[in-house]
Amino acid sequence: MTTPAQNIAAIRRQMAEKGLSAYLIPATDPHISEYLPDHWKTLAWVSGFTGSAGTLVVTHDFAGVWTDSRYFIQAEKQLAGSGIELVKLVVPHTAEFVGWLAGTLPEGSIVGFDGNILSRSVYQSLEAGLRPRGIRLDPNADLVGPIWTNRPPLPENPVSEHPAKFAGATRPEKLARVRQRLAEKKVTHTVLSSLDDIAWVFNLRGADVPYNPVFVAHAVIGLHAAALFVSPAKISDALRRKLNRDGIKVFPYESITTYLSKLPADAFVLLDPKRVSQNLPGALSSAVKVLDDVNITTWLKACKTPEEVEQTRQTMVRDGVALTKFFYWLAQNVGKQKITELSAQSKLQVMRREQPNCVGESFGTISAYGPHAAMPHYSATSESDVELRPEGLYLLDSGGQYLGGTTDTTRVMSLGGITDEQMTDYTLVLQGLIAISRLRYPRGTRGYQVDILARLPQWERGINFGHGTGHGVGYYLCVHEGPQGISPNPVDTPLLPGMITSVEPGIYRPGKHGVRIENLVVCTEGDKTEFGEFLAFETLTIAPIFTNLVKKSLLSKKEISWLRAYNGNVVKKLARYLSEEEKTWLRTMCRI
Amino acid sequence: MTTPAQNIAAIRRQMAEKGLSAYLIPATDPHISEYLPDHWKTLAWVSGFTGSAGTLVVTHDFAGVWTDSRYFIQAEKQLAGSGIELVKLVVPHTAEFVGWLAGTLPEGSIVGFDGNILSRSVYQSLEAGLRPRGIRLDPNADLVGPIWTNRPPLPENPVSEHPAKFAGATRPEKLARVRQRLAEKKVTHTVLSSLDDIAWVFNLRGADVPYNPVFVAHAVIGLHAAALFVSPAKISDALRRKLNRDGIKVFPYESITTYLSKLPADAFVLLDPKRVSQNLPGALSSAVKVLDDVNITTWLKACKTPEEVEQTRQTMVRDGVALTKFFYWLAQNVGKQKITELSAQSKLQVMRREQPNCVGESFGTISAYGPHAAMPHYSATSESDVELRPEGLYLLDSGGQYLGGTTDTTRVMSLGGITDEQMTDYTLVLQGLIAISRLRYPRGTRGYQVDILARLPQWERGINFGHGTGHGVGYYLCVHEGPQGISPNPVDTPLLPGMITSVEPGIYRPGKHGVRIENLVVCTEGDKTEFGEFLAFETLTIAPIFTNLVKKSLLSKKEISWLRAYNGNVVKKLARYLSEEEKTWLRTMCRI
Repeated sequence: MTTPAQNIAAIRRQMAEKGLSAYLIPATDPHISEYLPDHWKTLAWVSGFTGSAGTLVVTHDFAGVWTDSRYFIQAEKQLAGSGIELVKLVVPHTAEFVGWLAGTLPEGSIVGFDGNILSRSVYQSLEAGLRPRGIRLDPNADLVGPIWTNRPPLPENPVSEHPAKFAGATRPEKLARVRQRLAEKKVTHTVLSSLDDIAWVFNLRGADVPYNPVFVAHAVIGLHAAALFVSPAKISDALRRKLNRDGIKVFPYESITTYLSKLPADAFVLLDPKRVSQNLPGALSSAVKVLDDVNITTWLKACKTPEEVEQTRQTMVRDGVALTKFFYWLAQNVGKQKITELSAQSKLQVMRREQPNCVGESFGTISAYGPHAAMPHYSATSESDVELRPEGLYLLDSGGQYLGGTTDTTRVMSLGGITDEQMTDYTLVLQGLIAISRLRYPRGTRGYQVDILARLPQWERGINFGHGTGHGVGYYLCVHEGPQGISPNPVDTPLLPGMITSVEPGIYRPGKHGVRIENLVVCTEGDKTEFGEFLAFETLTIAPIFTNLVKKSLLSKKEISWLRAYNGNVVKKLARYLSEEEKTWLRTMCRI
Repeated sequence: MTTPAQNIAAIRRQMAEKGLSAYLIPATDPHISEYLPDHWKTLAWVSGFTGSAGTLVVTHDFAGVWTDSRYFIQAEKQLAGSGIELVKLVVPHTAEFVGWLAGTLPEGSIVGFDGNILSRSVYQSLEAGLRPRGIRLDPNADLVGPIWTNRPPLPENPVSEHPAKFAGATRPEKLARVRQRLAEKKVTHTVLSSLDDIAWVFNLRGADVPYNPVFVAHAVIGLHAAALFVSPAKISDALRRKLNRDGIKVFPYESITTYLSKLPADAFVLLDPKRVSQNLPGALSSAVKVLDDVNITTWLKACKTPEEVEQTRQTMVRDGVALTKFFYWLAQNVGKQKITELSAQSKLQVMRREQPNCVGESFGTISAYGPHAAMPHYSATSESDVELRPEGLYLLDSGGQYLGGTTDTTRVMSLGGITDEQMTDYTLVLQGLIAISRLRYPRGTRGYQVDILARLPQWERGINFGHGTGHGVGYYLCVHEGPQGISPNPVDTPLLPGMITSVEPGIYRPGKHGVRIENLVVCTEGDKTEFGEFLAFETLTIAPIFTNLVKKSLLSKKEISWLRAYNGNVVKKLARYLSEEEKTWLRTMCRI
């Protein structure tokens, strides 16, 4: 195994041979996924940094990873001694390295990268920022492939159907809706590389990456034909026949480029520049027109059907049962038996898997005790693992994949002896959660407009948190799903009925503690007034918000009513699944 | 004088000759100004619609003006019977007509317009939206010039200096700051067409358009030379010598294209695509590189110096004196003598002009009684003018140009017999104003993040308003000034120390009444905490917020304290300029 320093040196040697002034490695793959199969963990293999977002920039005298505040602490540790610097993004999820390249490289430089794993939109940012400076791009420079020995192969896990009982609509229904939108937009085809879009539209699920039940594939949906490009070994004959019956032809994974090259000259192809690689559309003939737009499936998938929302409500009860039983167990046993961050999350995993229709976890659990919780994306390892003792705060951010929905819940529990600052922080975070949960807003409101409500109680005291307030959540799909979100970033996407979004303000005090409370909410149709239509949020998550951490004097009457109603509903929904002892404990922990 | 229908017919005849499928007329001029000299009021001349924002789209079987909600009522009236439809923008200040063109015109169509009066950024939107559809653009089609007989000439008003006592910095200081930024951005020149940028950087003022003390000109600032392109008659010999002494050469207005064509091939020019016409940069040689970016001067001008802020504080007292004396006069005389919307605004104009250093009005006064105030941009005319009677609400939105700053204030006064709904609306609007005024926010916060605070009290009751919460304000310059603002639009511009912005929530009930309260605030340096730097707003406007319209039961303790402190400061600052009767009245109207 080579070291990051050796990898950077090997990349620089190739840069010199090819005349490149800079080389880029994004944290993405040909499907612009957030979670990658090992085969495509290029950034992690080269640099040692394993965060889900980041870009490595290598020049002849500099190497640095641009990443956002979620990963500052982790990146500092993982990059230490590698010669690779951490560059802190001011605005998350933006290509700030483009400005750095523009300011650093002289005219006539060439910036290389593998355009098969870099998104079309990042490419467009590079073009816009570097071309006026006389800097050129080489999107066909794969400098990692030649030096990555023992590279893991592509995953070959079987693909299965999402049972009709749980899927919100049939394949033909979904294809018909996609084609209706294609016709409305006056285009003839859409090319999908994003794995969640493909899984959703075909009602298929896979196991090629951890946590996301997706499989490696591309797809093309035209007005009259639909094609799925996937390793043949993954699809059973029976499934292939069913897909054929629904008008979907299955081709080998690699044949997508041939298929694209044969699209007729009058084809007009919709591509999502954020969900497709720069190089894939290069296979299209030059006569084919391209419309850059958000994938149609992204919008359809984001707005859950009433059936999907109802399934999610039931799923949330089951997930809440697992969480409540876990916290009860923890409360009874902390300080009495050895419980560590890792053993606690294993215990929860078992309890969750006992719930009906649970398939697994929806992301890597954050089981964080004491100062560890100050890292918003902490992940316990055997090196970092610590024992939970009957004092201070324990933060648990976890979720499950169920046939009937995806969950994502964060709760903080006092293990004993808490400070005034901890209670204040917890209460300020709770106030942010309540402000968004109670909101009523005009149709058309975008996530960035409401983000401040999660922060306002903190700002008044000079506090803030460095991540977004919430992300879209899939339905037995990715726990991070677009297009909507709630964050300070100007993402011009309205919150629409059926969209499920997390609400998760936090406060992080490095070296001391971290607090975050997270619920999922669904946007619901509201009422109409003379000023227009107003929407609202329905909270889906059913899990107790422990009140012994709440500083009641800080809460308004409306906030107390909300909390009382919320916890009351939790007790009501969970009671039948709990033992008498668990019920009694839950009622005490919910009292306000 | 021709009718709109005749104009449209004449345009369609020329479209047929030139093979154009559609023709566009924007509401802008070669300087992409909001307020235009009569010579360039093309949209108004063709269509009859006089709003400051709008785009006329003419095809062979359709003609429509796209405009925003401020102008819906006005446009409906002005376009009635013309055959030109009103198309309501969903999102203000966006080019939604591009999507309409893309969906309506067949492949191979040509869209024509005069690229000398259409901004580069709108052109870029047209390109991005229409080129993928196979629709071409013709930016050299001026179809209005040939049919506009008796067109008013360009204005020829003299240019004067902004006295050094009031200007925030000298010309050489400002040029040095611009050049420092040019060097930082690694460009060699900036081309300015926007009249406020030019007036600011050269400490010059003019009178070529109403309300904005600017003059028609272009400018080019390079690392080593500065050139001003302006009609020679406007500049006195003495002023020309002073400009020359500061390193600024003066050339005839039209010679800008020759000057641009002679820039060296290695020039690298910064252009603001929103503040320059599409055709102007066409004069550059093809070797010259162009960087699309916000004008450097826009940022420098927006962040007022401490001296400018202090001058504005003093100006606000004088403006508040005029407003208070006016409202006192109105309260004493309404119902006793004939006062109309127009006569009231004339009275105010006289009172304001009596204040020291007042140059004129900063925009057309909105003097709106009763249901007229439900039109956010109402402008009283001899046809619409009504008498004020001792009942209902009177809304006054007005501002002055002073050598020491620009003001913009809205107040609502009860003339008697108000309803519960009116008081509730007034109080909800006030709560929105207070929420923003009290805000403390991290450095980097953008206007779209805080906009919701002005709306939240309204949303809870199913109410909303259709305009932004606030706009940037110039310093003895344009009352609408970028780059910052407070609105739901995703304008990615932070609120920086020194920026002056209006805060003006409203509630409009067509046929009944309208309420708006508007203050100007300046962003101030705040304090540093372990979570970063926090900024705040200081309210600059000194004018009473009448409390007899306030429903005190709706206000929180914090809101009441804010209002008490605000009005208390108003009384304190204004007292020495008021008569005993005025003071007594003011105290009563401010009591809470």
